[in-house]
Amino acid sequence: MRAALRRFTGEHAVDGERWCVALSGGPDSLALTAVAAAMRPTTALIVDHRLQAGSHTVAATAREQALMLGCVAAQALCVDVGTEGGPEAAARTARYAALDHARAGAPVLLGHTLDDQAETVLLGLGRGSGSRSIAGMRPHDPPWCRPLLGVRRSVTHAACAELALTPWQDPHNADPRYTRVRLRTEVLPTLDEVLGGGVAEALARTATALREDNDALDGLAGDVAAGLDPGADLPVASLTSLPGALRRRVIRRWLLAGGAAGLTDGQIRAVDTLVTAWRGQGGVAVPSPLSRQRLFAGRRGGALTLYREPVAD
Amino acid sequence: MRAALRRFTGEHAVDGERWCVALSGGPDSLALTAVAAAMRPTTALIVDHRLQAGSHTVAATAREQALMLGCVAAQALCVDVGTEGGPEAAARTARYAALDHARAGAPVLLGHTLDDQAETVLLGLGRGSGSRSIAGMRPHDPPWCRPLLGVRRSVTHAACAELALTPWQDPHNADPRYTRVRLRTEVLPTLDEVLGGGVAEALARTATALREDNDALDGLAGDVAAGLDPGADLPVASLTSLPGALRRRVIRRWLLAGGAAGLTDGQIRAVDTLVTAWRGQGGVAVPSPLSRQRLFAGRRGGALTLYREPVAD
Repeated sequence: MRAALRRFTGEHAVDGERWCVALSGGPDSLALTAVAAAMRPTTALIVDHRLQAGSHTVAATAREQALMLGCVAAQALCVDVGTEGGPEAAARTARYAALDHARAGAPVLLGHTLDDQAETVLLGLGRGSGSRSIAGMRPHDPPWCRPLLGVRRSVTHAACAELALTPWQDPHNADPRYTRVRLRTEVLPTLDEVLGGGVAEALARTATALREDNDALDGLAGDVAAGLDPGADLPVASLTSLPGALRRRVIRRWLLAGGAAGLTDGQIRAVDTLVTAWRGQGGVAVPSPLSRQRLFAGRRGGALTLYREPVAD
Repeated sequence: MRAALRRFTGEHAVDGERWCVALSGGPDSLALTAVAAAMRPTTALIVDHRLQAGSHTVAATAREQALMLGCVAAQALCVDVGTEGGPEAAARTARYAALDHARAGAPVLLGHTLDDQAETVLLGLGRGSGSRSIAGMRPHDPPWCRPLLGVRRSVTHAACAELALTPWQDPHNADPRYTRVRLRTEVLPTLDEVLGGGVAEALARTATALREDNDALDGLAGDVAAGLDPGADLPVASLTSLPGALRRRVIRRWLLAGGAAGLTDGQIRAVDTLVTAWRGQGGVAVPSPLSRQRLFAGRRGGALTLYREPVAD
């Protein structure tokens, strides 16, 4: 784990003399807190979601452990979890907002492991919306740092045992009502047995490769889009020589810049047929946050154009 | 199924007045044979792998069914299955070679369904070698045509029942010694239940998106490689402005053109560090089919270069 953290700080420019670590009290973040505090002045940030009875005691124990492990400070952050996007998404939104507020400019280390990454890839696969959804979590997405994405969960557990630390066992981690828990306890062990082992590592490698592919194509689409007038029509001639995956990413950027939001792959493909299969067809409705207007992408001569229609009362 | 086949011939230029269909006698290829024979003059090609007792009878029954369904011809092809790459790979190699030989210039329709595609994606995920390995089967890879990749297996089974056809039930399809069978019977149903349904469709959509991404990046890497001297050193200046996923694809092409074979992602990344993290380090060994020589990729000044060393006796 020390080697993983050292490699991480070598590969990624992690700013500053000090850093924060997000500590739940569980084995992954507790082991991370131990090695982080031995490397740089470390502030432990403990989010109390106040969703379970006794969460206050869990946070207080984690705070004690952090100080005992040599953290220069340890803060419990109480948050109010909303409901948007379901309980897991709402807790995540509240957690990241509290961490971002409390970090005071410092980078924040997160204890996500290779096993978490594998579960994230499987969750994304179930959505089936391409490389964007199965590319997993980024190792470095400032201010967020995930130095343990290459480390198995078994290693963080062993590290806690070696350091004689008693981590908190979150009862949610054994609750089969959570999709992630069932992926961990049912799907991944079966898949691993059927495919002859190494599945978590394979899923993590897949995430890295797909993230790089997606970043490359997004970057190239950005280069193309940078040569266009913002908010203007999109000349078809600038698209026809591009391969499909790149062309649709340019169309996506153009639609977003023109006020579309929440685009699906199917809608982008429908607009794409105005380029690839043009035979005078009408415009394609695309979602837009303005409730009083409908947004359409159509073709006018040699260019794609956006137009709006008022919604009838 | 008729609609799927019609859509396929509309989207892909399927050459010729007539076509062949690869018929195993199972429900997918039998239903495909029925709809194909109603659309164009169709020759059924039945591969007898001679691996199971009674395979001759299975082939003869399939031949009868093909002629009854209106095929203009139906040929049983006896093959000898080797051992290279394991039993499944060896059977596939022998099968495609026999079909390619017998097709006499015509395109060949294959009965792979959406469920087969989903299983292929999961198998590729287990290898973890990036988008290339989870991009699944191509719908159109001349002479091979897979018009049913968007059709569920349940639909081909229903079509056989509707046409009062009795398909052959391959006992291998229920044999848990085959990885693919266990993916079908154990992993996919569990994954589907945990993720709330639609997993096979999501995996097939993922395959399409990743294949497009991979094709786009491969094509762009080909454009870069086309501007270089074949067999010459690779100037670092031609690589540094490229995003990583594209840069490593150019390096891969350059290594393959220089005689490397069987490259792993790790080896390509090691050569990449000669570009991205150059501090005078030595060459990187890359696999080559020449057993008397070792192949190395190194850096000399502003270029990557390949050199060989004789293997000591």
